Amino acid sequence: MIESFKIIPIGIVRKTDTAVNIDIFEDYTDGLLGLDGFSHISVLYWFDRNDRADKRRVLQVHPRKDSHNPLSGVFATHSPQRPNLIGLTVCKIRSIKGSLIEIEDIDALDGSPVIDIKCYIPGSIRERDVRLPDWV
Amino acid sequence: MIESFKIIPIGIVRKTDTAVNIDIFEDYTDGLLGLDGFSHISVLYWFDRNDRADKRRVLQVHPRKDSHNPLSGVFATHSPQRPNLIGLTVCKIRSIKGSLIEIEDIDALDGSPVIDIKCYIPGSIRERDVRLPDWV
Repeated sequence: MIESFKIIPIGIVRKTDTAVNIDIFEDYTDGLLGLDGFSHISVLYWFDRNDRADKRRVLQVHPRKDSHNPLSGVFATHSPQRPNLIGLTVCKIRSIKGSLIEIEDIDALDGSPVIDIKCYIPGSIRERDVRLPDWV
Repeated sequence: MIESFKIIPIGIVRKTDTAVNIDIFEDYTDGLLGLDGFSHISVLYWFDRNDRADKRRVLQVHPRKDSHNPLSGVFATHSPQRPNLIGLTVCKIRSIKGSLIEIEDIDALDGSPVIDIKCYIPGSIRERDVRLPDWV
C-alpha cells in the first residue's frame, strides 16, 4: 500500500482587475500573527483544475508549453501538471487586513486553493553560483 | 464538507554522515530529465513525524523553539508544525546519478518523504526591498 498525505485548503486566491488577495479562512487567521513584519511570502497553492489522474501522471513537458523548449522532466520545471499539484510563488505583500493578504501578483488562477504560506527569508545562495539551462 | 487533496510521496530524503541524497522512486525518475541543467532545486517534503491532528492544529509558535522569539503565526515562520505539513528548502545539487540527487544539505530529517521538486529560478526580488522582523 502506498502511503499518502492529506492537504486541506487554508485559504483561496482572489483576483480582480484591480487587486490580488489571498483570503485566509477564518479557522486559520491566528496563523497570520506577525506576518506583517515581512515584506514577502512564499505562497503554496493547489493546481486544482489539473487534479485528475491523467494530469498527475504527466512526467515530461515542453516548458512554458512552448514546443521549441526541450522536453523536460516536470521536476526540472514549474509545470502545473505534476504528480503533486503544488504551485509555489514568492509574492510581495501590499497589506494585511484581517484575513486578507493583498499581494502584488501571483501566477495562480482566481479561486485556486491556498495550502500554505511561509515567510520569505532570503537564503545564502550567491547569484554567481546559480546555473540555468538555455530555455530559462 | 471540506474539500481535501491527496499527496503521494515521489521520493525520500537519505542522510548519512557523508552525504545527503534525495532518492526518487522509480515511477517518477522520468520527471528528472533536464534537471542537470540547474544548479539548485526547491525541495518540498512532508514533516511526517508531525502528521497528527494535534500538531496540525497548532497555529502559533515561538520561532526556532526559542521562547525569547515573539509568539508568531505559523504562516509567519517555517515551523514544522502547521496545518499542511509541507517543508521547503532550496538546495544546491552536487550530482544526479540515476534516481539519486546528491545535494549539499537540507533541513529535513533522514527518511522524510519528498513530495515535489522544482527547478530553482532566481526571482526578481531586490534584496533591498526585503523586510524582516527582528527575530530573524
